[in-house]
Amino acid sequence: MGNNIKKYNKKYDYSYTFGAFPTIELLKNKINQVIEIVISSKFSNDEVKDYIFSVCEEKNIRIRENDNLINKINPKGNCFVIGVFRKYEENLNMNESHVVLVNPSDFGNVGTIIRTSVGFGIKNIAIIEPSIDIYNPKVIRSSMGAIFKQNVKRFKSFHEYYKSFSNHDMFLFMLDGTLEIEEVDRKSEKPYSLVFGNEASGLDSKLREYGNSVFISHNNGIDSLNLAIAAAISMYKFSQNT
Amino acid sequence: MGNNIKKYNKKYDYSYTFGAFPTIELLKNKINQVIEIVISSKFSNDEVKDYIFSVCEEKNIRIRENDNLINKINPKGNCFVIGVFRKYEENLNMNESHVVLVNPSDFGNVGTIIRTSVGFGIKNIAIIEPSIDIYNPKVIRSSMGAIFKQNVKRFKSFHEYYKSFSNHDMFLFMLDGTLEIEEVDRKSEKPYSLVFGNEASGLDSKLREYGNSVFISHNNGIDSLNLAIAAAISMYKFSQNT
Repeated sequence: MGNNIKKYNKKYDYSYTFGAFPTIELLKNKINQVIEIVISSKFSNDEVKDYIFSVCEEKNIRIRENDNLINKINPKGNCFVIGVFRKYEENLNMNESHVVLVNPSDFGNVGTIIRTSVGFGIKNIAIIEPSIDIYNPKVIRSSMGAIFKQNVKRFKSFHEYYKSFSNHDMFLFMLDGTLEIEEVDRKSEKPYSLVFGNEASGLDSKLREYGNSVFISHNNGIDSLNLAIAAAISMYKFSQNT
Repeated sequence: MGNNIKKYNKKYDYSYTFGAFPTIELLKNKINQVIEIVISSKFSNDEVKDYIFSVCEEKNIRIRENDNLINKINPKGNCFVIGVFRKYEENLNMNESHVVLVNPSDFGNVGTIIRTSVGFGIKNIAIIEPSIDIYNPKVIRSSMGAIFKQNVKRFKSFHEYYKSFSNHDMFLFMLDGTLEIEEVDRKSEKPYSLVFGNEASGLDSKLREYGNSVFISHNNGIDSLNLAIAAAISMYKFSQNT
């Protein structure tokens, strides 16, 4: 990688971690994807700095101190460490449970869902396109680097996803779902897929045919729960039941 | 209010709703706080437009079509309706349950928590200062206007809040809490307060003395849940139990 690193663009085959926390997660979990590390002269946490230097030395990863470069990559970011990594894709594990996001449109929601799913033990995320760019640094940041502990894979359509994972119990979340989430009583030992639609338009009700349509009851003071909130309550609930 | 409306500033005694959805919630729930409505010439949803015009006519609220003003108030917002409203404060109901946010620092989290709490029937939010400005339009927007259905009040310290609501069962969420949330078994008919700390630093463990310290179990793949996620799971759980 030359010196001509720029502000993030989804067309590039690399992306960035902004800040020490996600950069450490990158180094710990996806070291083979790391291209280089850039640090600021203002970076003063010696413990973290020592860790990053020792890992980079051991793995022969370039590390440079360059304030201009930091500002160029992340002008308003006020961050002192940036990791540069090659984008990658991994296959989902068919024997484990998944979260499936159909056409998500908000960086923060996707990152937060990834962070939450790691915490509740779901290690596979399917993204059904069209979708926001999952390697945008805003996703990485709101995942707090948890994305590096996940298998994340994109699919052209829900049907394409389904064909590969028809061994799963599918739970499709929609406002007019048939089953309230408290009524879901999983005796099955099959892995499950929790499927959520777009922030504004929800999940196409045609997808009902693929499995159980589910809703989370709330009063009519709001039209719907935020996507990341609905996904979190569902993952929490499923992690309790299974 | 003159023509010299500007970009939002927390020092002003008025704030804005950006977009039709929160503006309608403002008109429906806090009509007496509305100063005026500004619409764009590109605003094409006739049904919504008719509703806004009829409410404003009935209540003698000024409404103007002014694209320059819209762009001045919200330059990058790409929105077609703005509501201008006086900031207000309301007392919390001591016989109802509350959510208490101690030193929140993220606009989106606070707005999302307000939206979620309305959905799960909690109508009172206490904000312990220092805090982000709860009338910032970003909070209004991520609440989807649900903030206009809430009583929101600021307090100088948790102790000041506690003195007014010592009739409540207090549940203080902290990573090293004593009680797992699934173990909370509320037989009490007292109203409750769900108390959450700052995004980065959490809740000061000294606050334990005020009530029950509680945690939500997750694995060690993440350091903590996002604040809005933790609050949502707690509200969901408490709305099931009580």
